[in-house]
Amino acid sequence: MQAKTPSDSKTLMTDMVLPSETNPLNNLFGGELLARMDRASSIAARRHSRRITVTASVNHVAFNHAVPVGSVVTVEASVSRAFNSSMEVYLDVWMEDRFSGERTKANEAIYTFVAVDETGKPTKVPKLIPETELEKERFNGALRRKQLSLVLARKMKPSDATELRALFMGE
Amino acid sequence: MQAKTPSDSKTLMTDMVLPSETNPLNNLFGGELLARMDRASSIAARRHSRRITVTASVNHVAFNHAVPVGSVVTVEASVSRAFNSSMEVYLDVWMEDRFSGERTKANEAIYTFVAVDETGKPTKVPKLIPETELEKERFNGALRRKQLSLVLARKMKPSDATELRALFMGE
Amino acid sequence: MQAKTPSDSKTLMTDMVLPSETNPLNNLFGGELLARMDRASSIAARRHSRRITVTASVNHVAFNHAVPVGSVVTVEASVSRAFNSSMEVYLDVWMEDRFSGERTKANEAIYTFVAVDETGKPTKVPKLIPETELEKERFNGALRRKQLSLVLARKMKPSDATELRALFMGE
Amino acid sequence: MQAKTPSDSKTLMTDMVLPSETNPLNNLFGGELLARMDRASSIAARRHSRRITVTASVNHVAFNHAVPVGSVVTVEASVSRAFNSSMEVYLDVWMEDRFSGERTKANEAIYTFVAVDETGKPTKVPKLIPETELEKERFNGALRRKQLSLVLARKMKPSDATELRALFMGE
Amino acid sequence: MQAKTPSDSKTLMTDMVLPSETNPLNNLFGGELLARMDRASSIAARRHSRRITVTASVNHVAFNHAVPVGSVVTVEASVSRAFNSSMEVYLDVWMEDRFSGERTKANEAIYTFVAVDETGKPTKVPKLIPETELEKERFNGALRRKQLSLVLARKMKPSDATELRALFMGE
Amino acid sequence: MQAKTPSDSKTLMTDMVLPSETNPLNNLFGGELLARMDRASSIAARRHSRRITVTASVNHVAFNHAVPVGSVVTVEASVSRAFNSSMEVYLDVWMEDRFSGERTKANEAIYTFVAVDETGKPTKVPKLIPETELEKERFNGALRRKQLSLVLARKMKPSDATELRALFMGE
Repeated sequence: MQAKTPSDSKTLMTDMVLPSETNPLNNLFGGELLARMDRASSIAARRHSRRITVTASVNHVAFNHAVPVGSVVTVEASVSRAFNSSMEVYLDVWMEDRFSGERTKANEAIYTFVAVDETGKPTKVPKLIPETELEKERFNGALRRKQLSLVLARKMKPSDATELRALFMGE
Repeated sequence: MQAKTPSDSKTLMTDMVLPSETNPLNNLFGGELLARMDRASSIAARRHSRRITVTASVNHVAFNHAVPVGSVVTVEASVSRAFNSSMEVYLDVWMEDRFSGERTKANEAIYTFVAVDETGKPTKVPKLIPETELEKERFNGALRRKQLSLVLARKMKPSDATELRALFMGE
Repeated sequence: MQAKTPSDSKTLMTDMVLPSETNPLNNLFGGELLARMDRASSIAARRHSRRITVTASVNHVAFNHAVPVGSVVTVEASVSRAFNSSMEVYLDVWMEDRFSGERTKANEAIYTFVAVDETGKPTKVPKLIPETELEKERFNGALRRKQLSLVLARKMKPSDATELRALFMGE
Repeated sequence: MQAKTPSDSKTLMTDMVLPSETNPLNNLFGGELLARMDRASSIAARRHSRRITVTASVNHVAFNHAVPVGSVVTVEASVSRAFNSSMEVYLDVWMEDRFSGERTKANEAIYTFVAVDETGKPTKVPKLIPETELEKERFNGALRRKQLSLVLARKMKPSDATELRALFMGE
Repeated sequence: MQAKTPSDSKTLMTDMVLPSETNPLNNLFGGELLARMDRASSIAARRHSRRITVTASVNHVAFNHAVPVGSVVTVEASVSRAFNSSMEVYLDVWMEDRFSGERTKANEAIYTFVAVDETGKPTKVPKLIPETELEKERFNGALRRKQLSLVLARKMKPSDATELRALFMGE
Repeated sequence: MQAKTPSDSKTLMTDMVLPSETNPLNNLFGGELLARMDRASSIAARRHSRRITVTASVNHVAFNHAVPVGSVVTVEASVSRAFNSSMEVYLDVWMEDRFSGERTKANEAIYTFVAVDETGKPTKVPKLIPETELEKERFNGALRRKQLSLVLARKMKPSDATELRALFMGE
């Protein structure tokens, strides 16, 4: 099973914000953006694994910027680290002003997917080799986030989460 | 501004899983469930604040159980803690087998909302007073989760996150 | 086959009125509310019967109150009477003002469902035992409504509809 | 205000049954058909009145025939009687087998609409003059149905519903 | 296989323009109209052939008139010529002003469909016999359009396109 | 007004084919693909003009390859030539096999958009300067296609369509 790079799974989903997808302030509903990010990151995970992929978790997602109706939204997703059968996908969401064309970062998000066979059983995925500085930073952070997930789900003792202990104790 | 209890904002959204909402394994798409949870928790936040509410963040969500087509899904949402203008909403998702009626927990999730006025400016919300044991546990955890968000967003130094330090250092 | 009560099938579907679901006066389309009521009452019928259920008829539904965009709508459905393989489901629809939280009755409706097996053949359902005063009143009215359906569909002679004759003749 | 005939408001809505609109037996959901009928009858009411029209009520609708996925469904709607500001619309629903082209009646339904001005206030509509035998029969039945609605809504005493008393007492 | 006339496949799809289907100028999106025309012409092709039909091509479609939200749109489709296994479908789109009822031609379009069996293999369709003057004109134009398609797809040499040469050379 | 290149407007819309978007052969509906192409090309036209853009016409689109459910579809759109206020957008549609990842060309299409101001009046757009060989070929073909549109719409005499005469007469 040949290792892959983040570029191999890079997925660009550009689409408009339609009136039917907005809240009373005429901005994109959080729920609609979550659904678009799920589809884009699922495609990235599939491109890495060439398997059926199912959403395993959504990590902390912050909605820092309202996205007004009529904006063009680009969801950019790449696998940031592969484990045995799971993959972390890192998403950057950009919005583009309708008239000026100015492009701003709307938010970032991290989804985790598991590759499964036709019966739903987890199955092995290729390794990921990061190339750019940003890809390496995200690759390294992925282990810390995995420990955090396990601790929050009570599947790992805080004292075993070496990466996290270092973060909070300045070790 | 009168304080409220979690029951005051409790929201039940029961609906079916339709074929158009499923992945190749015939289970509910993660993205569709994220969107339903966003609508349900937004209603809970509105019931607490009686204001326009916008999604501020989605905390770690784990999809532990596949939800097959034809299941009945119940999303149950209540405000678990109120801060100045933001509210943490705790969600429990239940699925019900079409024939046996057996009800199992599909997953839990935590969304954060901000109450805003008509111009989008954050505005004060009532306090929350937890009543049951479970509500008190979730109320207490909310501060830890808020610190975690701030640390992950680099708006708080890990050394100032007293609740989290305690968790990882056994202090 | 054990009898059930209306509480056993009670179904709450709370959701927002989105801009894409409104007419030129910015109120919820009748057709969209009919579809939500169909899904909610179908779940109630399934909870009573634990079978596949198909819509058999919609009785008189009056839309007394316009439901403005941004309202929260709660559809509440319970089986009100069970016959051999058919079930009458009684629905109460509530709307909640976005800001005041004031809750008003938007309308009532009555749907009838038939329980079928995988081949579409009607199949027996459990009896219903009403408990509260309101449940008993609805249970008693169901027979009158069934006769009315049969008379309107020309499957019963008006002279045999004893419940209805009594209503119109003061017998 | 010039009187109109049923042909003046006749509306034909022909469309397919898509997989996303079907229940577990692969037949069209009742709720989806109710929504299509609401749109078609609303257009018929608008063609008669040239006003904004809002759904006032849905009379008894019987779903006698399952409509399988892939069928072509034709909803045919015409105003059957006009009162002061309300109009009764009679619907015939036909389904067409995908391969044989055989056309069968799927069901009939009756919707009532009110014409309103831009503020939502009821406004006068033209008279309806039936032409064919079937149109005359439906025109005459409309008064009986209106009385039935009023009686069921407790806005008319059964003893005043002369048309209905005649039906049930053989007067 | 018995020949058919354009009336045999005539399909009328009348529906409203909903707010969720409009662009920033509050007019119907081109893409939504293209999708409605595809469904209507697919039904016409199926009525002619009584087979599964798949879209083979869309010829030049001009959007001459904006269709404002709240309009009633009627898509009228008939097979205009049948070849071996393919059918040309001619569409006329009408829009109706909400209040005046004035009906104007919004645009025309031409779609081509191929009839296939359950495995997707092209299969023979009945001949078409045009009746009215307009039907004959469209029938004759269909051969010219077919040659144009083949030339544009580089499946026919321009010099063999006798119908087109005549058009451009005045032969 | 500064000239732009095709790369300036390049738009990538990658998304899945969901079960609700497929025909009875389980392939993507032509109408759904037409709608996606309309959204993608509209974004490309907006990126070139920074104006509101409305679909003016769809040129010949051939659906050469069926796109099965579960495929990943990428719509790639760039402005291929700018005229006064109109822009030709050239689209390439790729599909990707779910498991092998093999990428094949599904079809090509050409849409034309007009840039308008807030009142719907056509407004000037920047010139387009093609760079690669393929971009130059498409730029040159655009004039021939524009003449073809005008001839088909009877707004230009065939004898004045110099580009087309050359094509068919081998001049």
